[in-house]
Amino acid sequence: MINKNAPVGVFDSGVGGLTVMREIMRQIPNERIVYFGDTARVPYGSKSKDTITRYSRQIVRFLQAMEVKAIVVACNTASAYALDELEREVDIPIIGVVKPGARVAAQATVNGKLGVIGTEGTISSGIYTEYIEKINPNITVIGKACPLFVPLVEEGLWQDPVTEDIARRYLGELIDTGIDTLILGCTHYPLIRATVGRLLGEGVSMVNPAYETARELQELLAKEGMLNDTQGKLGEEKYRFYVSDAAEKFRRFANSIIKYGILSAKTIHIEEY
Amino acid sequence: MINKNAPVGVFDSGVGGLTVMREIMRQIPNERIVYFGDTARVPYGSKSKDTITRYSRQIVRFLQAMEVKAIVVACNTASAYALDELEREVDIPIIGVVKPGARVAAQATVNGKLGVIGTEGTISSGIYTEYIEKINPNITVIGKACPLFVPLVEEGLWQDPVTEDIARRYLGELIDTGIDTLILGCTHYPLIRATVGRLLGEGVSMVNPAYETARELQELLAKEGMLNDTQGKLGEEKYRFYVSDAAEKFRRFANSIIKYGILSAKTIHIEEY
Repeated sequence: MINKNAPVGVFDSGVGGLTVMREIMRQIPNERIVYFGDTARVPYGSKSKDTITRYSRQIVRFLQAMEVKAIVVACNTASAYALDELEREVDIPIIGVVKPGARVAAQATVNGKLGVIGTEGTISSGIYTEYIEKINPNITVIGKACPLFVPLVEEGLWQDPVTEDIARRYLGELIDTGIDTLILGCTHYPLIRATVGRLLGEGVSMVNPAYETARELQELLAKEGMLNDTQGKLGEEKYRFYVSDAAEKFRRFANSIIKYGILSAKTIHIEEY
Repeated sequence: MINKNAPVGVFDSGVGGLTVMREIMRQIPNERIVYFGDTARVPYGSKSKDTITRYSRQIVRFLQAMEVKAIVVACNTASAYALDELEREVDIPIIGVVKPGARVAAQATVNGKLGVIGTEGTISSGIYTEYIEKINPNITVIGKACPLFVPLVEEGLWQDPVTEDIARRYLGELIDTGIDTLILGCTHYPLIRATVGRLLGEGVSMVNPAYETARELQELLAKEGMLNDTQGKLGEEKYRFYVSDAAEKFRRFANSIIKYGILSAKTIHIEEY
């Protein structure tokens, strides 16, 4: 029996997935959410497939212990490396951020030249290229890893000359290839959207997979008759936050992304799951 | 019975501790070394005392399983947070990088104004201040956390305008306070020593705890009659490298710090210790 009023589980390596949670809150405001940020092992982007798969499995077990009805892998690296295996292992719906982002980007490009930026893990997995070529083999996908963006975002340098300088180096080659569409292939990147957008100029549109992921979740829950039909109050009962370390720092950062006043985040030992 | 010919264990969150290992290799070339880099959970500097202590304990158990005769905590954050507890728990000599660095810095300052740079964890622990005030209560210690230095070093931007720009922001206030000595309180920082030194100018001397730590290890082993009296050949038998993730990437980076040609690094599951 499906409990429609059970929460949706959302996880990421840290705070980036909050940009996805924010979209879910906007688009399906009735849903309860349990968010997990793996702050004890952040970042994921520089680590291997084996390690990320092991970490993701532990988190899925934790979310299942919290009796979630569906899971959103709100991290591109974990979606790239672990989603296929997780799908085989769990019996509730589980979606990642890569497929929804790839789908909308493939529709958005006019000249067939598509850029993707992400962590080393996401880019070297080649997963965006793989999905997009399945949708339309005529599209050329050009990937670029941007390893310093996550630490810069986590330092709060969202609008800063240093972030702009680093972004110019990362994006220079991509822009020269004549792309007309750029996928923000890491859930941290919407937070530096303004800086990236300034460099890209008006001829290039940005795709934020968070928006499409929330839409796909809504459609999936609707199709399965799993949409929450009660309207809970904002607050701790509706949105719960768990992390593997440094809960207070997470809470402060989360409040700068999701602006309704997060009162608490709890620390758990994720290695025990 | 002490096995004098057993290796010394050295650990860090990742590659930073290699600057300490390099000093040990220079100063006590007869010693065999087992190095462990916690690349699956790097960085340590932004994580809490509880988490760092748990991680350090697992690593110490791994090194004991490798039958090391002594352990060097080649990470300032782990030295700051976990060394006191580790000392109580293990029956072989164990030293960190903080005390040796604090001691030499307290001797080096002439005007009694001492700066310390390190990770958020190291600086907020206040451990350098505590040790130095015990040695000489007249010294004023001014700490400054530099959270972007580790990612910039790991990106290889050792000599780069961006690193210089960030360093200028971090160091500006410190320099204005009139310090004459600066402790490089993170084992990654010797790699950006040139950039930091240019900003400090000639009036400020830098203290690299790696050098003093190797000297303290040498003295400790000599006092306990534990110095290795055989002279092994360079190579895999003498220096062994273990990591918790991404061994090949580690190997490449390690070869840019320790230049004798590291042939392999092995990945282990550190959570199982």
